[in-house]
Amino acid sequence: MQDHVYKLIELTGTSTASFEDAIEKAIKCARNTIKNLCWFQVVETRGNINKRKVDHWQVTITIGFTVEG
Amino acid sequence: MQDHVYKLIELTGTSTASFEDAIEKAIKCARNTIKNLCWFQVVETRGNINKRKVDHWQVTITIGFTVEG
Amino acid sequence: MQDHVYKLIELTGTSTASFEDAIEKAIKCARNTIKNLCWFQVVETRGNINKRKVDHWQVTITIGFTVEG
Amino acid sequence: MQDHVYKLIELTGTSTASFEDAIEKAIKCARNTIKNLCWFQVVETRGNINKRKVDHWQVTITIGFTVEG
Amino acid sequence: MQDHVYKLIELTGTSTASFEDAIEKAIKCARNTIKNLCWFQVVETRGNINKRKVDHWQVTITIGFTVEG
Amino acid sequence: MQDHVYKLIELTGTSTASFEDAIEKAIKCARNTIKNLCWFQVVETRGNINKRKVDHWQVTITIGFTVEG
Amino acid sequence: MQDHVYKLIELTGTSTASFEDAIEKAIKCARNTIKNLCWFQVVETRGNINKRKVDHWQVTITIGFTVEG
Amino acid sequence: MQDHVYKLIELTGTSTASFEDAIEKAIKCARNTIKNLCWFQVVETRGNINKRKVDHWQVTITIGFTVEG
Amino acid sequence: MQDHVYKLIELTGTSTASFEDAIEKAIKCARNTIKNLCWFQVVETRGNINKRKVDHWQVTITIGFTVEG
Amino acid sequence: MQDHVYKLIELTGTSTASFEDAIEKAIKCARNTIKNLCWFQVVETRGNINKRKVDHWQVTITIGFTVEG
Amino acid sequence: MQDHVYKLIELTGTSTASFEDAIEKAIKCARNTIKNLCWFQVVETRGNINKRKVDHWQVTITIGFTVEG
Amino acid sequence: MQDHVYKLIELTGTSTASFEDAIEKAIKCARNTIKNLCWFQVVETRGNINKRKVDHWQVTITIGFTVEG
Repeated sequence: MQDHVYKLIELTGTSTASFEDAIEKAIKCARNTIKNLCWFQVVETRGNINKRKVDHWQVTITIGFTVEG
Repeated sequence: MQDHVYKLIELTGTSTASFEDAIEKAIKCARNTIKNLCWFQVVETRGNINKRKVDHWQVTITIGFTVEG
Repeated sequence: MQDHVYKLIELTGTSTASFEDAIEKAIKCARNTIKNLCWFQVVETRGNINKRKVDHWQVTITIGFTVEG
Repeated sequence: MQDHVYKLIELTGTSTASFEDAIEKAIKCARNTIKNLCWFQVVETRGNINKRKVDHWQVTITIGFTVEG
Repeated sequence: MQDHVYKLIELTGTSTASFEDAIEKAIKCARNTIKNLCWFQVVETRGNINKRKVDHWQVTITIGFTVEG
Repeated sequence: MQDHVYKLIELTGTSTASFEDAIEKAIKCARNTIKNLCWFQVVETRGNINKRKVDHWQVTITIGFTVEG
Repeated sequence: MQDHVYKLIELTGTSTASFEDAIEKAIKCARNTIKNLCWFQVVETRGNINKRKVDHWQVTITIGFTVEG
Repeated sequence: MQDHVYKLIELTGTSTASFEDAIEKAIKCARNTIKNLCWFQVVETRGNINKRKVDHWQVTITIGFTVEG
Repeated sequence: MQDHVYKLIELTGTSTASFEDAIEKAIKCARNTIKNLCWFQVVETRGNINKRKVDHWQVTITIGFTVEG
Repeated sequence: MQDHVYKLIELTGTSTASFEDAIEKAIKCARNTIKNLCWFQVVETRGNINKRKVDHWQVTITIGFTVEG
Repeated sequence: MQDHVYKLIELTGTSTASFEDAIEKAIKCARNTIKNLCWFQVVETRGNINKRKVDHWQVTITIGFTVEG
Repeated sequence: MQDHVYKLIELTGTSTASFEDAIEKAIKCARNTIKNLCWFQVVETRGNINKRKVDHWQVTITIGFTVEG
């Protein structure tokens, strides 16, 4: 393993289905512009309520990816 | 958008099925007495174990709703 | 000073003017139903942005008031 | 064990005697209006000083109790 | 209820399926050597990404169990 | 409401006038390059002192904005 | 003083009497199997309520002890 | 820039006007006895309520200043 | 109530008897040199263990007192 | 000193040598694309272990730099 | 990569030389009884002072290692 | 061991060499006016960057020392 430098960005994914799906949506969005995604960490878990039911699950994650120094 | 004031209450929902279901149970309970639920935020995620398996998933959430000033 | 018990409730005030005004709005709302408000503490400070400018300042506070045991 | 929903409220008890007594005072106050108190958790421990001695011990606790959905 | 003493250990479960499954895997591992598991609490939620998709969900939990004094 | 993904960036605004003005300066800077700013959250509040008076109020905020997946 | 390595374990002691007694019970339990206990630190303070009174005081502590490398 | 050592002290300023004014009052008090004040950081923001209105805004800050080694 | 400025200092009191006594020892020490002590807040609760028993209870507190501007 | 706006980014540097070297590697990487780096703050300190020895020291830092509004 | 379960233990290493050396001492101690050490994370950094100089650097770390389910 | 009271002060040491050296500088500064320094704890680790390189390592520590009651 070489000496790497990683950059971390923060994204909030939303989904009508589940927390896991909200995370997958955020990662899918990130991989359109960034190669070499390595890991994520959950920062905050929320949701909004509409007509008295959960409307969207919202998960804020930090994603780490390698950058070339 | 007018100037609103929101009240926040804390509830713990429990479920034998999943974290999402525990949250839905807490919100269902809140909406019986409170109108205008707006959002929730996860505060703590726990569970109890019985006969060496997860018995109940427990999620403590803060729920925000509009109050009339 | 007697032995008192205090209850704490959490409110989010919003204002187009400033953080102080958002707090005053939350306290004004609380005093309509609760006597004996004693102190508040700022929990979170946020705002929403509309048309690229700050639209509403939002301050979540805890308010403490005496209850009669 | 059924699926329960619990509500959490925050109280500050004060006592001239000790931290344990301040907690008991807060619980005694809660049980006058709420059935089914289940547990508490200490949030903050403070005190005020008068004439250079501890005058009141103050403990802020969260109390959880079952609600009927 | 007698006076009990509980020990808490920290485990990270991983799963290709979901957060709940990662927790169940950690508990299954714990129960092979420890009797009397009582509860768990989620400490951290992460995941690793491989070929631009979530590869493993990772949940770090604290598990509490009774010890005989 | 569709499924959105939001990106969060962190900025520190400074102002000789007030905390609110420091936040507005940070947002003004962000909106030059980013469309669809949605909300901000205060992370840290500081200031520097020069000639024994407050010289600059400094507020670090997180700004959220929609990204197109 | 030599170079030492310490291990830290986490225990929850419970007592019908007081917080101090709950801590002593946890330490008594630890010393049955571990020599060279050095210090403890309080992590969390809780209690359960039964028949509307405090039934058990519960204190979670970290205990440090020397290990031989 | 030489190697400096800074000392940090904690003060709570109060004001009937605003948060900024409460901070200025604390700094004014500090500069009567301390030279070379450099920066401050907000630690806690509170207020007390009297006759159902905000009576005093209270801000606890850490102030850093250079000491001569 | 006038505009006051308060200073906060941090002390660790120790006692062979109890947590409350450790706090009283720290306050007794502070009042020898400082007038106008107003309140304290518990920061950390620890203890050291000697011969397999609690030897000293240690409580770190912040004490606030009025200063004359 | 003018009114500036700073942007903060998060990087993880890794090194086989030391924590300081891991930080220098992250800064070296940042300065290839960003002018006007001003300060950093350590967020997290970790490492991975290979063949029972520390293989890489890993430090996550926030770096602040001036942006032109 | 299979589904793994990791256990985390907490150790405090001490050294007269440096923080890095204190960590290496803790890991050396762990590897005498545990195979498959994977990573560590720094939890707390302290030191004790003797004769007005730093006597020992003390670093508390969490070490993760694979367990066989 | 007698009942002692300890005072804690906060200092930021800076050094062009390393984190350990920044801590030693802060302690050297403290020992010029204070006897009986006992321990320190790291609170924050930062640095400033000049000409695209680390210029000064900055470590904020809490130092504890015995006071005579």
